Amino acid sequence: MDKLVIGGVELKSRLLIGTGKFSSKKIIPDVIKSCETQVVTMALRRVDLKAKEENLLEYIPKDIILLPNTSGARNAEEAVRIARLARAMGCGNWIKIEVISDNKYLLPDNQETIKATEILAKEGFVVLPYMSPDLMAAKRLVEAGAAAVMPLGAPIGTNRGIKTKELVQILIDEIDLPIIVDAGIGRPSEAAEAMEMGAEAVLVNTAIATANDPVNMAKAFSFAVKAGRIAYLSKLGPTKQYAQASSPLTGFLNEGEL
Amino acid sequence: MDKLVIGGVELKSRLLIGTGKFSSKKIIPDVIKSCETQVVTMALRRVDLKAKEENLLEYIPKDIILLPNTSGARNAEEAVRIARLARAMGCGNWIKIEVISDNKYLLPDNQETIKATEILAKEGFVVLPYMSPDLMAAKRLVEAGAAAVMPLGAPIGTNRGIKTKELVQILIDEIDLPIIVDAGIGRPSEAAEAMEMGAEAVLVNTAIATANDPVNMAKAFSFAVKAGRIAYLSKLGPTKQYAQASSPLTGFLNEGEL
Amino acid sequence: MDKLVIGGVELKSRLLIGTGKFSSKKIIPDVIKSCETQVVTMALRRVDLKAKEENLLEYIPKDIILLPNTSGARNAEEAVRIARLARAMGCGNWIKIEVISDNKYLLPDNQETIKATEILAKEGFVVLPYMSPDLMAAKRLVEAGAAAVMPLGAPIGTNRGIKTKELVQILIDEIDLPIIVDAGIGRPSEAAEAMEMGAEAVLVNTAIATANDPVNMAKAFSFAVKAGRIAYLSKLGPTKQYAQASSPLTGFLNEGEL
Amino acid sequence: MDKLVIGGVELKSRLLIGTGKFSSKKIIPDVIKSCETQVVTMALRRVDLKAKEENLLEYIPKDIILLPNTSGARNAEEAVRIARLARAMGCGNWIKIEVISDNKYLLPDNQETIKATEILAKEGFVVLPYMSPDLMAAKRLVEAGAAAVMPLGAPIGTNRGIKTKELVQILIDEIDLPIIVDAGIGRPSEAAEAMEMGAEAVLVNTAIATANDPVNMAKAFSFAVKAGRIAYLSKLGPTKQYAQASSPLTGFLNEGEL
Repeated sequence: MDKLVIGGVELKSRLLIGTGKFSSKKIIPDVIKSCETQVVTMALRRVDLKAKEENLLEYIPKDIILLPNTSGARNAEEAVRIARLARAMGCGNWIKIEVISDNKYLLPDNQETIKATEILAKEGFVVLPYMSPDLMAAKRLVEAGAAAVMPLGAPIGTNRGIKTKELVQILIDEIDLPIIVDAGIGRPSEAAEAMEMGAEAVLVNTAIATANDPVNMAKAFSFAVKAGRIAYLSKLGPTKQYAQASSPLTGFLNEGEL
Repeated sequence: MDKLVIGGVELKSRLLIGTGKFSSKKIIPDVIKSCETQVVTMALRRVDLKAKEENLLEYIPKDIILLPNTSGARNAEEAVRIARLARAMGCGNWIKIEVISDNKYLLPDNQETIKATEILAKEGFVVLPYMSPDLMAAKRLVEAGAAAVMPLGAPIGTNRGIKTKELVQILIDEIDLPIIVDAGIGRPSEAAEAMEMGAEAVLVNTAIATANDPVNMAKAFSFAVKAGRIAYLSKLGPTKQYAQASSPLTGFLNEGEL
Repeated sequence: MDKLVIGGVELKSRLLIGTGKFSSKKIIPDVIKSCETQVVTMALRRVDLKAKEENLLEYIPKDIILLPNTSGARNAEEAVRIARLARAMGCGNWIKIEVISDNKYLLPDNQETIKATEILAKEGFVVLPYMSPDLMAAKRLVEAGAAAVMPLGAPIGTNRGIKTKELVQILIDEIDLPIIVDAGIGRPSEAAEAMEMGAEAVLVNTAIATANDPVNMAKAFSFAVKAGRIAYLSKLGPTKQYAQASSPLTGFLNEGEL
Repeated sequence: MDKLVIGGVELKSRLLIGTGKFSSKKIIPDVIKSCETQVVTMALRRVDLKAKEENLLEYIPKDIILLPNTSGARNAEEAVRIARLARAMGCGNWIKIEVISDNKYLLPDNQETIKATEILAKEGFVVLPYMSPDLMAAKRLVEAGAAAVMPLGAPIGTNRGIKTKELVQILIDEIDLPIIVDAGIGRPSEAAEAMEMGAEAVLVNTAIATANDPVNMAKAFSFAVKAGRIAYLSKLGPTKQYAQASSPLTGFLNEGEL
């Protein structure tokens, strides 16, 4: 069967989701159930155990793999501190590296991300770095011990789609790690397209959280990811310049019986 | 529940498929089962009852709605004759009008299609005309009694996608009949996109028939159509120019406890 | 030399412009001079000789070919009446057919346009019909005696670009009349692209009239049209999937002298 | 007047060209003349003074600014050596950094490029680094002392266009250095588009060198760059969703005199 293996764990679902921007945390369990995701990312702050406000973790079923992210880190050092803290707090050893010092586009800092990946991989973390699609940076992430590479499709939260297709396709073709398209995917069709391109998974947050009906939108993304994955495995037919008749065109009406 | 009604019939599946170009007719039953389609189109010639070669109809389950097409017709008159013949042969009263005199792009002739639609609708056919996307022609098809309007995404068999998006969207927004995108859809992501745009259904043939694994590709299209439809109903969130943080960014690392 | 011949007239400029939407008619002479256009379209109403308001014709140099349009016509009959009136008023025998009954998208009615073209061509007009790109309708315009065919790139005034590229390219390849892309072109790069595709000319109005600096924007379009035309004639090199070094890559640094 | 200043030099032309891939070096002077470029890039190997084969420099007029590139360098150290050698050979102090270790896509190594830029800028070079579009890397190139930033549109020599538009636009908006789009531009319309986006210049090689008529194609690019630049300065009008009449539509035919 077709499974995705990350950090030694077999995943049936290729849709990872985020937990930000939902109008209420209370629908998160229904969203998770609806799309059958197995991996959920969250900012560490939302997991604050001492907080009086409701704790995000209460809304995430026990069999879900937590993927805390280092949101808020502006360099490798801060990302490493957040990662260690997450593990110490019981969030497990998966970590999504986000190193961002640009507040307008929230674009990742590949150089600092590579540094953080190297340190945390050595400490036994399953490291999933968020990155600006760039072949050489991706190669360094492989060397640094990343478990997967997560290039952006468009700036976080924009729902603009896979605007970096050219560069992401190169990563898919050249990098021997799962490529997970993260950020920018705004529609199920775009998630399907990422999978058709050969991405191993996608991470979606804003498009689900800001939909009118997030629970059903999560299901839509789940179907789309399956559609794209099956299409990739079933190999698409060629694209043609000129028309090719699906039905027999010639001669039909010359026959006597008509 | 969300159902598509055409010619008084309630359809649960919004994926119509064609039967041309399969390497063997023998897999057609598995393709139909795999994608749960309820409407299947075929050229009348392939239904020839006297033929010694295998008859296509043997491979189509009895509960499937047949949608014979007028492939081979070069004008309204020929289309009308084929339609009547199809009904006389027991193929039911649904008919897909294809009037094509251009052999290179197989583009439909809207003017002749409107004429044929008018005649056949008066005779009680459920008429689904294949057309070049054009608002005024679509309005005339409505007046002529069409049951749905089927604009092309790209020339038949090209797998090029919905290249006529601008014009198809206008039909979706302005025409009070189901819009079924037909021809050109080459990937599940494109089927999903048509549905996200608000198309009521899609018709796919070449992309399934020419896939390496047509049975699974049919399933992929089925998932994609569901994904797109659910997304349309769940209303997509807005697209933004600049990034919007999914996770809380500020302040985190200034806190004392880190 | 590379010249465009329409209605027996040799044109050096392949940029036709419109006169609507300018903040003041007074800049029209400068716009014409700036882009060196030879053909200018205008709605007949703006040419009203009895009007107390300033007459558009006063702003158009005598050596410019007038291309009155039938804006306001909702069917062939009305278009024919406007065309005859324009000629009677001294606007010459060129006429751009616009038959539009849709007030939201201002999309042309191909069927009525074909009718009007046939009548006016027989009366000796040089007929340039505005049309929704459709191969069969274009073939009928050829038969009806059109002097050129003017498919839309996007709805009038939207500045959305050539959204109908797939269909326009087919017209360029298959129709033996000059194809002039009209409506929708919003940027010089889009005008250049139309010309690279093999269009014989473009008509631009809104993109020039609504620019911050219309006189210079007209010049920009003029350069773009030349660029696209020369590129078409100079034949573009092939597009490649993988990189092709422009500079010698190998061996350089292995040499002793470095 | 609108001028581009790089390294203290005022440039009137915003089209830089490369010298690789021409079928014969002999047409290079005509290409330069035809497009009025002021800056020409070349691989150092082609400038070998001791070579028995014809020396590229013989074909470049004396008033042209030479922009030797470090093609062949796989890391910062090699790039620095080539740059110094170029200056020692009399090629001036402009240098285009290319650090490439990927032979399939020829994608640049941003990290090594930043290192080389820093060293060479300190040594007084006017450094133009070729880079994979990435905001954080571009910021580091600014700090390192680059004179301009040259993001790629698509892999070198592919003629695929500006596939990285999303990321290049961010550089244009956020980086306080001239952005020169380099690599991938395959058509004049794409050069015009880069300029409309606000790029300060473009560098074109393959699209000119592999055209059927390189001398005229160079002229086409020259016109396109001017078109895009003037359009940028003249500010494009807004894009609309729905049509906006250019001509007065209503009432016309209700008037008595018709």
